[in-house]
Amino acid sequence: MTRLMKNLLEILLEQGQPVYYEQNHFILREGQISDEVLFLKEGVVRHFVLDLKGNERTIRISRENDIFYSSIISYYTDEPTYINCQTLTPTQGVSWHKDQLETIFMQHKELDQFRYEQLTLFIIEKHKKELSLLTNTAVQRYSDFCKNNIDLFNRIPHHIIASYLNMTPETLSRIRSKSIS
Amino acid sequence: MTRLMKNLLEILLEQGQPVYYEQNHFILREGQISDEVLFLKEGVVRHFVLDLKGNERTIRISRENDIFYSSIISYYTDEPTYINCQTLTPTQGVSWHKDQLETIFMQHKELDQFRYEQLTLFIIEKHKKELSLLTNTAVQRYSDFCKNNIDLFNRIPHHIIASYLNMTPETLSRIRSKSIS
Repeated sequence: MTRLMKNLLEILLEQGQPVYYEQNHFILREGQISDEVLFLKEGVVRHFVLDLKGNERTIRISRENDIFYSSIISYYTDEPTYINCQTLTPTQGVSWHKDQLETIFMQHKELDQFRYEQLTLFIIEKHKKELSLLTNTAVQRYSDFCKNNIDLFNRIPHHIIASYLNMTPETLSRIRSKSIS
Repeated sequence: MTRLMKNLLEILLEQGQPVYYEQNHFILREGQISDEVLFLKEGVVRHFVLDLKGNERTIRISRENDIFYSSIISYYTDEPTYINCQTLTPTQGVSWHKDQLETIFMQHKELDQFRYEQLTLFIIEKHKKELSLLTNTAVQRYSDFCKNNIDLFNRIPHHIIASYLNMTPETLSRIRSKSIS
């Protein structure tokens, strides 16, 4: 993040509400309407849906220094969400209500650049994930994940990481044991 | 699209370059770098990648009144793309080069709102597609697609629609014959 972006983030952080959650707290549950953006100072949060067979499928893992919507579709459409958003560790961060964010962006036009860059990062992340599932092997997906998240293996259940990487826990375990040995 | 957004789009369209492509023209090929945004007045364009088995996988179908990046990741990262972007019909539209767009947005601050809304639409679209693959049956995905795109069955090859809906051509054919009969 550039110095300009860091400064803009500071403006935002000063105006948010501090939040503290225990492990396994639901920030949002399926059926609710998202009206919140969060920044994580400490902690890990998973976003998951129930698939057709009733299995939990993790579609995003948020961690330190991430900004995220509790559900981005619901936030913009005002429709009830399919997403469950749950802390996996004790978590502290900053939260903004939708109405408050609107006001902040009205009052601080210099934040438009921050919002634009953040939205493009979200888009790139989601497109990369889609492509990765089509064009990368399980080993490549694991390897990419480890670049910035190797510490998560000591912090959250591995079956959640496996779900995020779209592989079975057994496959993840096999890949890990090969890469470590 | 609201009247305001239509007016903002008009400002953009006036400054773009008209483009005309024959059927099966590649707007972008894997390995190239995307520096272009397009608006379709007439025609259909597919965005596809080659998966691990070398199969073409359609990840987006753009059509009349769509705005799109030839490859959104490559456009913002300047990395060579994995995407192939190809016309499926004779196509006419408007194109903007990246440098030109930067200049237009510098000169017309009123377009910030348009850009913001367009980016959120892209994000919602991509997230909805991700969720749809997890939480919707093939029949539901077909039914959703038909709401705005039923005419495409007379305009583009069905195997491309099947790929976009993440089902085999045989499954798509079976679902269609049941829904029509």
